[in-house]
Amino acid sequence: MGMRVVVVGGSTAGFICSLTARRFYKDAKITVVRREKKALVTCGIPYIFGTLLNIEKDLLPDKLLTDNDIELVIGEVKSIRRDEKAVILSSGQKINYDKLVLATGSVPAKPPIHGIDLENVFFAKKDPDYLQGLLVKLEGAKDVVVIGGGFVGVEFAEQFRKRGLDVTIVELLPHCLQLNLDDEFCIMAEEKLRELGVRVITGERVEEIVGRDGKVAGVRLAGGERLKADMVLVAVGVRPEISLAREAQLKIGEGGGVWVNEYMQTSDADVFAAGDCAEKYSFFTKRPTNLRLASIASREAKIVAANLFQPRVKNLGTIGCFATMIGDLGLGAAGLTERAAREAGFDVIIGVATTTDKHPGAMPGAKNLKVKLMFDRASKTIIGGEVAGGVTAAELANIISAMIERRMTIEEIAFSQYGTHPALTASPRTHPIAYAAEDALLKV
Amino acid sequence: MGMRVVVVGGSTAGFICSLTARRFYKDAKITVVRREKKALVTCGIPYIFGTLLNIEKDLLPDKLLTDNDIELVIGEVKSIRRDEKAVILSSGQKINYDKLVLATGSVPAKPPIHGIDLENVFFAKKDPDYLQGLLVKLEGAKDVVVIGGGFVGVEFAEQFRKRGLDVTIVELLPHCLQLNLDDEFCIMAEEKLRELGVRVITGERVEEIVGRDGKVAGVRLAGGERLKADMVLVAVGVRPEISLAREAQLKIGEGGGVWVNEYMQTSDADVFAAGDCAEKYSFFTKRPTNLRLASIASREAKIVAANLFQPRVKNLGTIGCFATMIGDLGLGAAGLTERAAREAGFDVIIGVATTTDKHPGAMPGAKNLKVKLMFDRASKTIIGGEVAGGVTAAELANIISAMIERRMTIEEIAFSQYGTHPALTASPRTHPIAYAAEDALLKV
Repeated sequence: MGMRVVVVGGSTAGFICSLTARRFYKDAKITVVRREKKALVTCGIPYIFGTLLNIEKDLLPDKLLTDNDIELVIGEVKSIRRDEKAVILSSGQKINYDKLVLATGSVPAKPPIHGIDLENVFFAKKDPDYLQGLLVKLEGAKDVVVIGGGFVGVEFAEQFRKRGLDVTIVELLPHCLQLNLDDEFCIMAEEKLRELGVRVITGERVEEIVGRDGKVAGVRLAGGERLKADMVLVAVGVRPEISLAREAQLKIGEGGGVWVNEYMQTSDADVFAAGDCAEKYSFFTKRPTNLRLASIASREAKIVAANLFQPRVKNLGTIGCFATMIGDLGLGAAGLTERAAREAGFDVIIGVATTTDKHPGAMPGAKNLKVKLMFDRASKTIIGGEVAGGVTAAELANIISAMIERRMTIEEIAFSQYGTHPALTASPRTHPIAYAAEDALLKV
Repeated sequence: MGMRVVVVGGSTAGFICSLTARRFYKDAKITVVRREKKALVTCGIPYIFGTLLNIEKDLLPDKLLTDNDIELVIGEVKSIRRDEKAVILSSGQKINYDKLVLATGSVPAKPPIHGIDLENVFFAKKDPDYLQGLLVKLEGAKDVVVIGGGFVGVEFAEQFRKRGLDVTIVELLPHCLQLNLDDEFCIMAEEKLRELGVRVITGERVEEIVGRDGKVAGVRLAGGERLKADMVLVAVGVRPEISLAREAQLKIGEGGGVWVNEYMQTSDADVFAAGDCAEKYSFFTKRPTNLRLASIASREAKIVAANLFQPRVKNLGTIGCFATMIGDLGLGAAGLTERAAREAGFDVIIGVATTTDKHPGAMPGAKNLKVKLMFDRASKTIIGGEVAGGVTAAELANIISAMIERRMTIEEIAFSQYGTHPALTASPRTHPIAYAAEDALLKV
């Protein structure tokens, strides 16, 4: 019999880690222990509510696990016995491992707001049954308040609006998406939301969720305004789920996740962590970072799979590559925003390009495209980029991500090679990544 | 007064070189000498005939030149007097230069086919008046034969079909697009063309363009078939326009273009060449290559602009990054195809991924996405990639191009960082570039 790999958690990181481990290790016995009968495609969750309109359309295909000879155990791991290399389920079942992967994910943060336990207050929980409840409740809803204007809140708001609800976002920071984008891009997002009919309130705190007969009736803001609401969605971030790791006396990182080394091993070399539960380190500063995205979880899961039986692939830190879509506005970002770069102490050179995402601009459906790149003046290397445009925004951000990863310089990027096509890209002259780097070159 | 820069040719390379030179050198006196009163956005040319339907919508904006204090002289340069550092126009006008840029472009190749001079035989000439003639003639046309199934021929055929014409492509090689893509991608292109109603004949030679009263009446194939045609478009490649350079006794490269060094200087250090007229060298083999694309011309023009007064940016060779769209099928490629890599003697490792360009697959408008990557077994670095999908195909090819440029390894790509989003990309698990690299990793 091959080595035994046990993965705790079957959401993004657990699902992907088990499938990737199978690709690398044909003979291993791989078991995934998952609490939920069904698991969700996590990034698709907001899209259940305005586009997919059916939980079933956003489920991870468990058949892929069984087709790949991965055992799926539905159950809850109650404890880890590192001394016997085993996990104990709440059913009493004991499963032995040679290598253990913690992919326990995160839970939505629950801010201490009065009224947060009222009926019809929902969170972006990765639980199909819970979200089915939200889907049903939405049918009778009219006014929805989304607390939190990060990307999850924004995506939910956009989708709620798509089904005709009256939606208000309340964000504490001066702008929505402020942790992912610089102000000028946040403003584009807010303008698009407003154009779609979403009310956007920023720089404002929710004082209380007001109830009537135990149910949500409204939201009272610190400034005094009272918003009507028959539903509230709270999306103010996530908290890594680390209780199992803590009980097993694995080291917890400063950032609140399970501590891992460059190979994604926890303080026990036979126990790995991946995804939202694992500590993240910035590619740039090597300090803990709070970014928790499915794409990051996915990459970590793949690295863990590669390293299970031999340290092989290093995680040199999280670049943070992000994309979203609001109506027809595609937004993408990779690395540090200008704000984050300055906060981290970089002497930043900025390059900006504006163009269209097809060329000539007379091509039907051409959209404005804006790219902003951040470079470190000392090394002349790229440390961040942001994109606003159409459906190519995410892949443009991914070009930037590859350039960050390979520490390309301003000059290398300005003269790098691109393919262009009238229906698919900006013009050769203004391909926005090269063109923004050219702009930065003038400021060196 | 600043240094005098004279650019001969005002198409892609000349236009971009002059504008970029202005960005770098505020004080230079820059003059563009162009034969045509108006110049075209070259990659947009096929799209004039089915999408834009108006030459005016595909013109380079001359206002950009004048706004940037670039002198535009409409005229033809008859000779270069390198001893006096001057060009002589056919009007007799003499213009002195400190630095000269040859951007004389290319002319469509004219194969020795009987009947090629008949009325209604057209070429993809970069001449607005000529193409206006084609646009007018198309209004009375019904049956069009396109000779040559490279990307220009394919794009013209697709656009002719879009306006309802009966279109047949005749390609000499076994497949359309064979110089840019491997067979499996060529076949996807051919299937899409057929689905759109274009007849595709490959592995077949045109024996004669048959005339009646001096006009095209049909096309006779070597195999004997006679195709009805009231118009023919010939798109069998281009020939670098080097007569001026030759007369000025500048060195001509083995590949038939004006010889240039890594800084894009010709054999005269004060004379540069960029775009279709300049010799191209492969990034991989350093040998001459025949790729001539607007995107390549654009990059060379920018490199020339940067190097005018000081060798600064090296052109390490042409990767060749290409994209096209046939109906809703987006195709992209960067670097070597598998065929070209094997011909160049590489021991090739292939990685393939198939997924969808949105996720979950139930997202509306999700299209199949296929990526194939080529790696050199000796160095484990990426040397090529091909993409078939939707509108993100070109930017996916551009990610691959950046990875080739930075010589990323299989492992680095498999574990590189991507942003993903349901409406914009494949799933985090199957982002096709990482996923194809993972596939290749299993074959190392």
